[in-house]
Amino acid sequence: MTLFTDMCDSVLGESIIGRARNAGKVEINTVDIRDYTKDKHRRVDDKPYGGGMGMIMAPQPIYDCFNAICDEIGAKPHLLYMTPQGKTLTQDRVKELAQMDNIAILCGHYEGIDERVIEELQPEEISIGDYVLTGGELPALIVADSISRMLPGVLSDDECFEDESHFNSLLEYPQYTHPAEWNGREVPEVLLSGHHQNVDAWRRQQSIKRTFERRPDMLENAELSKKDKLYLSELKANEKHS
Amino acid sequence: MTLFTDMCDSVLGESIIGRARNAGKVEINTVDIRDYTKDKHRRVDDKPYGGGMGMIMAPQPIYDCFNAICDEIGAKPHLLYMTPQGKTLTQDRVKELAQMDNIAILCGHYEGIDERVIEELQPEEISIGDYVLTGGELPALIVADSISRMLPGVLSDDECFEDESHFNSLLEYPQYTHPAEWNGREVPEVLLSGHHQNVDAWRRQQSIKRTFERRPDMLENAELSKKDKLYLSELKANEKHS
Repeated sequence: MTLFTDMCDSVLGESIIGRARNAGKVEINTVDIRDYTKDKHRRVDDKPYGGGMGMIMAPQPIYDCFNAICDEIGAKPHLLYMTPQGKTLTQDRVKELAQMDNIAILCGHYEGIDERVIEELQPEEISIGDYVLTGGELPALIVADSISRMLPGVLSDDECFEDESHFNSLLEYPQYTHPAEWNGREVPEVLLSGHHQNVDAWRRQQSIKRTFERRPDMLENAELSKKDKLYLSELKANEKHS
Repeated sequence: MTLFTDMCDSVLGESIIGRARNAGKVEINTVDIRDYTKDKHRRVDDKPYGGGMGMIMAPQPIYDCFNAICDEIGAKPHLLYMTPQGKTLTQDRVKELAQMDNIAILCGHYEGIDERVIEELQPEEISIGDYVLTGGELPALIVADSISRMLPGVLSDDECFEDESHFNSLLEYPQYTHPAEWNGREVPEVLLSGHHQNVDAWRRQQSIKRTFERRPDMLENAELSKKDKLYLSELKANEKHS
């Protein structure tokens, strides 16, 4: 639910999401809120009561737009509203959202939307982070992207996302591809060894090391083996020495 | 710097960013990394050393692409690399980035990019949040949007962003527009009063209340007056009673 369907459509037609939609793995439709205004000039916004800059999206077009979606799909989708006031999105929440049958996403724009339609529809309010954006479209596309790639059959192989940063509360290990030497820099020898066990062990340690160095807060939620914990305590000991 | 220039262009042509670009308030160009590959099949990626799923972006096209940008603009832009491994973006960092003359943004895709080009170019690594995405394009567009709206003349009035959530470490107050009654719900009386001082006081309290209820962590960085602090202590006292 947006005022900028063209922009959303062009993103949703590209890359992995576009491929998944074409293959019928996920259905995503953009709906123009403006199509539901009862204003004779097709306006969807007006000045704020109490004064102030910017324009506020009126409640009626949003409310009618959502009801039309419910009628269309014959069910009440879980409604998300992208707003800096919401709970910050996490990968855990993405995984939960990916279990739902139907999701509608409301993109705010201008200075915000009339509070009464929020009270009426009681959406789940989601923020993608603590920064100010022009509208809810990019955040909504972020949500659509993150959920879509969790759905069965969207990525080419089920294992594909398991090593990603944040998937298992660890950052990803460094990656290398051809050529073996580039600009005087070589690929770490272990990766050329063909010894899978050593490669896995090296990568696991690199993941832990990076997470420790860059995002120690994430380690609290990480599932660590005995070996991982031993390595982590070595890292901590080295840090104290240096 | 992306493999998906069309998708980026369509977003960058819309809404406030599109208007700002047309008015010459900000210049944003998309550059196709693929144009810089020396591979005869125009490939930009290859399998990871050490095995594993997905494809890794090779160092050469990215390196040459960045150097071409430097040549083109006759300066070395501050380079951002969008990656879940980076420091999480905040509005404070957005404000700092908005002071820079030239910024280049590198969008990763596939399973990541070859670590050696990261070591070579030493970009500032930025994450927009703790969730897994398909690529760096949407995060780069988020950064472009958040920076652009901070530049002089991009928003129609300088005051426009001062009440926004996160701008002053407080969430925004609720907003209302016409009609005064909708679906049995009325606009708060104070907003209809025309008494600006009362309106301002009510809005300030609503901002503090919301931030207290939804994001108490943000209050640590908020600039609060004596009056604000008094109101906040009332909120805290009420919470204990209920």
